[in-house]
Amino acid sequence: MRDAYREQLDAVTGRLIGMARKANEQMRWATSALLTADLALAEKVVEADPSINRDQLEIDEMTIEVMATQSPVAGDLRFTTSSLRTTADIERMGDLTVHIAKITRMRYPDHAVPEDLRSTFAAMGRTAENMVDKAVGVLRSHDLAAAAELARDDNEMDRLHRSLFLVLFDENWDRGVEAAVDIALLGRYYERFADHAVEIAANVRYLVTGEVR
Amino acid sequence: MRDAYREQLDAVTGRLIGMARKANEQMRWATSALLTADLALAEKVVEADPSINRDQLEIDEMTIEVMATQSPVAGDLRFTTSSLRTTADIERMGDLTVHIAKITRMRYPDHAVPEDLRSTFAAMGRTAENMVDKAVGVLRSHDLAAAAELARDDNEMDRLHRSLFLVLFDENWDRGVEAAVDIALLGRYYERFADHAVEIAANVRYLVTGEVR
Repeated sequence: MRDAYREQLDAVTGRLIGMARKANEQMRWATSALLTADLALAEKVVEADPSINRDQLEIDEMTIEVMATQSPVAGDLRFTTSSLRTTADIERMGDLTVHIAKITRMRYPDHAVPEDLRSTFAAMGRTAENMVDKAVGVLRSHDLAAAAELARDDNEMDRLHRSLFLVLFDENWDRGVEAAVDIALLGRYYERFADHAVEIAANVRYLVTGEVR
Repeated sequence: MRDAYREQLDAVTGRLIGMARKANEQMRWATSALLTADLALAEKVVEADPSINRDQLEIDEMTIEVMATQSPVAGDLRFTTSSLRTTADIERMGDLTVHIAKITRMRYPDHAVPEDLRSTFAAMGRTAENMVDKAVGVLRSHDLAAAAELARDDNEMDRLHRSLFLVLFDENWDRGVEAAVDIALLGRYYERFADHAVEIAANVRYLVTGEVR
């Protein structure tokens, strides 16, 4: 029979998965808004983010309540510390989608991303979402094979990120400094978002194995 | 008489302070290397950073050991969760100094920062170091008045950060796209470093008051 303690831990996992899905939804909106210069959708990202911040507070409170009342040890203790790290990662992912949305908003009605770079950002967005989907799977299953896959996806994100600089620093770049700075910062936001997805899986690996790196 | 438990907690605080000081030393080197195009000093930052990463592993291990063996509650439990957050912040600060050093290295023997922007980066470096000094004071004293000061310093950092974009986006900017992208990314690294210093103080405020925001 399942006890209340186990139910508390499962409730935390459920909330972590829900929080990660919100971050992913914000990323999907942020990318779509960026690629279509959709101001309303960019605003929706900005307005949605406080919900993720509240999730962090609430999930951390649940986790600390488990720590205070159950004094977990071994794997259960690692679960709680892993949960605290994971909410911090997802909260930061939400912030990064807001940064993307704010660049869209700042340049509206113009496009922040010139047409010939949109396919790269579309690919970065797909890679990011795919990585969070896998991270959610790892949160649910604790399957470390999927965690390893995330490292490969992150390499693809890094490749896309580097490809932006080849375009920006090419002598044929004629979109000016402001557009180049936007692209460089946007590239960084996608790359950091992906890093945090990798971290979520690393947090699960730690909770399963006790190994940090 | 002081017991072993209290000594364990004090040892964690001591290590957190030492770790924060390393991040600040790296920031001082990274800024100096950036402003003087000093390749050897930039390399020193890159080589120093693994020590900060090890600190995170070791301090987290000490903290989780306290959790596992002492089952802390109330303020002591908050101390341990605050410590886990703080090592994550400082580890990230170290990474950001490495990003700064790598831009210096990539542009060497050229300067990454044109002469007329060096005073701004010098001011950002000073502000960053000053903020970490205050954060270290807060870690030691748990004095929340100093924590509030950090928010003001962060406003100064944001002002310096914004002033960079006025220069980059001015029609008289003639340093080209690559230099502009370097400046924009460097500005972001300093601004994020400062954010983490504010977070360290916020972690202490949480541990003292139990309030997160």
